[in-house]
Amino acid sequence: MKIDMSHGSGGKQTSNLINDIFLKNFDNEILNKLEDAAVLDDIKGKIAYTTDSFVVTPLFFNGGNIGSIAVCGTVNDLSMMGAIPKYLTAGFIIEEGADIETIDEIARTMGLIAKEANVKIVAGDTKVIEGKGGIYINTSGIGEIAQNGVSISNCQKGDVIILSGNLGDHHAAIMSKRMEIENNIMSDCAPLTSIVNNLIENNINIHCMRDITRGGLATVLNEVASNSLCGVEIYEELLPISNEVRGFCNILGLDPLYMANEGKMIAVVPQNKADIALEAVRKSKYGKNAQIIGKIVNGKSVNMITALKGNRIIDILYGEGLPRIC
Amino acid sequence: MKIDMSHGSGGKQTSNLINDIFLKNFDNEILNKLEDAAVLDDIKGKIAYTTDSFVVTPLFFNGGNIGSIAVCGTVNDLSMMGAIPKYLTAGFIIEEGADIETIDEIARTMGLIAKEANVKIVAGDTKVIEGKGGIYINTSGIGEIAQNGVSISNCQKGDVIILSGNLGDHHAAIMSKRMEIENNIMSDCAPLTSIVNNLIENNINIHCMRDITRGGLATVLNEVASNSLCGVEIYEELLPISNEVRGFCNILGLDPLYMANEGKMIAVVPQNKADIALEAVRKSKYGKNAQIIGKIVNGKSVNMITALKGNRIIDILYGEGLPRIC
Repeated sequence: MKIDMSHGSGGKQTSNLINDIFLKNFDNEILNKLEDAAVLDDIKGKIAYTTDSFVVTPLFFNGGNIGSIAVCGTVNDLSMMGAIPKYLTAGFIIEEGADIETIDEIARTMGLIAKEANVKIVAGDTKVIEGKGGIYINTSGIGEIAQNGVSISNCQKGDVIILSGNLGDHHAAIMSKRMEIENNIMSDCAPLTSIVNNLIENNINIHCMRDITRGGLATVLNEVASNSLCGVEIYEELLPISNEVRGFCNILGLDPLYMANEGKMIAVVPQNKADIALEAVRKSKYGKNAQIIGKIVNGKSVNMITALKGNRIIDILYGEGLPRIC
Repeated sequence: MKIDMSHGSGGKQTSNLINDIFLKNFDNEILNKLEDAAVLDDIKGKIAYTTDSFVVTPLFFNGGNIGSIAVCGTVNDLSMMGAIPKYLTAGFIIEEGADIETIDEIARTMGLIAKEANVKIVAGDTKVIEGKGGIYINTSGIGEIAQNGVSISNCQKGDVIILSGNLGDHHAAIMSKRMEIENNIMSDCAPLTSIVNNLIENNINIHCMRDITRGGLATVLNEVASNSLCGVEIYEELLPISNEVRGFCNILGLDPLYMANEGKMIAVVPQNKADIALEAVRKSKYGKNAQIIGKIVNGKSVNMITALKGNRIIDILYGEGLPRIC
C-alpha cells in the first residue's frame, strides 16, 4: 500500500498510519496517550536538548537505514554533552508514493535502536508532500546531563584526543550502495551511549566530546580548535581505518578525514587519564578499535603529522562532501 | 543568493548559513554556544514535549509565512497541555535553489514570534535536498506544565466547550493565495499562550484544551469524544465565523467545521466556571471573538444542532482536506 496525500490530512488516514505503524513500533505509555504534547516526569538537574533532520539516500544501506541514523544521530548529540538520553520525538515528512511497508520497516528499526539506547519516542508528527516516495525524518531529543562542563570550548593544552573507532565506514557504505559497488563495508551507525557511560563511570573528567558526522573528523577537529582557542595535532599512523575502507578510498581518491561516520566520536580528556579513558572506550560495545590519535597543543590550526613525518594542515570541509549522507 | 548542496555539507557553507541567518535571527545565549546539544537549566515539575513538521505551500501567505506556523504550531501544542512553552528547536530541510533572502525572512519571522511567545530557539539543524526551492521546517518544543491534568481524555458530562475565535481563517487564506483570489482574509496564525495564561491565572480547572489545525473543529471534537468516552453537542448558530470566510465557503462549497486554523483552540471547562473562563479568553489578545459553542453530553458521537434545529452528526475528516495546509 502506498502513501497518498490523505495520510497527511490529520483525519482518518493519518490516524490509521499512527495506530498501525508508529504506536506499534514505538510503543510506550507516554506516546500512547496521543496528547498534543507528551507529559514527562521532571528531569533532575540540567537538560540537554537537540534536533537533527535526516535526508539520507538511499533509505536502506549496508548496516542500517534512515531510521537507524535518525535515532542514533540525536541520541549521540545528547551523549556528546555528557547527557544520558531519555526521550525522543520523531517527525516524518513523507513523499506521496512511499510504501507503507517501507515506513513500517524504518519505524521498526527506530523502535529497536531506541530500546538499545534506552530512550523512548514520546511524540511524533506525519506530513505528506508531493514527490517520488522519499522519506525525511526529524528527531529531537532530551537528555539528563550526567557530567557537567563537557563542551567544545573546554579543551586544554596537553589533553589527549581519543577516537572511538574506524573512520569513514558510513560514508563508504552509502557511496558503495549508490555506485552499486559490492563489498563488505557496513555503516557504523550506532548509539554511543555505552561509551559515554563507561567514561563517566570511570570518573574521567571529560573536557569535550563530539561525534563524527557530516564533514568528518577534519571538521570536528577544526570546531574543537576554533572554539577552544587551541591547536590540534594528530598522527596519521594512529588513525584507525579498516582495510576495506582504506582500499575503497585509494581507488576513489577519497580522504577518510572528511568522510562521515554515524557511530564514532572523539573524547578529549586530561593526559593523566588517557590510559583509563582509552580502556573504558575500548570496553564498550562500539569502541573496540579506539585509539589515542593526537593531542591539544598551542596554536590555532589542526595539523597532521603524516606517515612520512611531514606536516599537513587539515582545514574544515569546503564544498559539498557527499550530499545527503545523513 | 541561492542554496546549493554545499549548504548541507556540515562544512564551511553550512557554518556560514548558521552564522548569517539563524544565529542572527534566533539570537540567544544558549543557541550561540553551538554545542551538539543545548544545555538548559532544570525545569521545575513536569515537562511537556512535542514536535511538528511544517510543509505549507505557498511559503508566504496573507497573515504569515511557514515560519510563523512553525513557531505557533509547536508553542500551541505545548500550551494545550497546560504548559508554559520555554524552548524550541528548529530543523530546516531546504531544497536546492531556495533563496537565502527567503530563508532569512522566514527566520526573522520565527525570531519575532518566538519573542512574542516568550520562547527561545535553542538548537537547530539544516539539511539540503534536491528540488525546486521548497522549504520544510520541523520544530520541537519543551514547556513547563503549569496546570496538571489537562488531557483530551478528561472531559466530563456537563462541561462547556469554549471556542477561542473565528473558524477557517488559515485554511481560507491559504486557499485564496493558491487560487489567486484577492480578498481580505488573513491567516489567524498566532501563539495561544496568552489565552492559556489567562485561564490559569483565573484559576479555571481546565479539563481539556486542543488547538484547531488539520482536520478542523470537527476532527478535534471527535478526538475529544473518543478519548473522553463521551458525546459532544454543538450549536451551529453559536459558531463564530467571519463574514468574509462565510462568503468564501458559500462560493466554494466548503464546510468551516473541517477547515484548519493556526491560532484557535477549544477549552473544555466545568459549567460553573463557564462565564469566568469565557471572559478570560475574550480578554486575551487572540481571543476577542470567543464563544461557548456547546457542551459535553452522554453518548459517543459529535452532534450539531443546526440553525434550522435539525441534528447533524459530525464525523472525523475522511480524505485529504486541503493538502499542505500547515
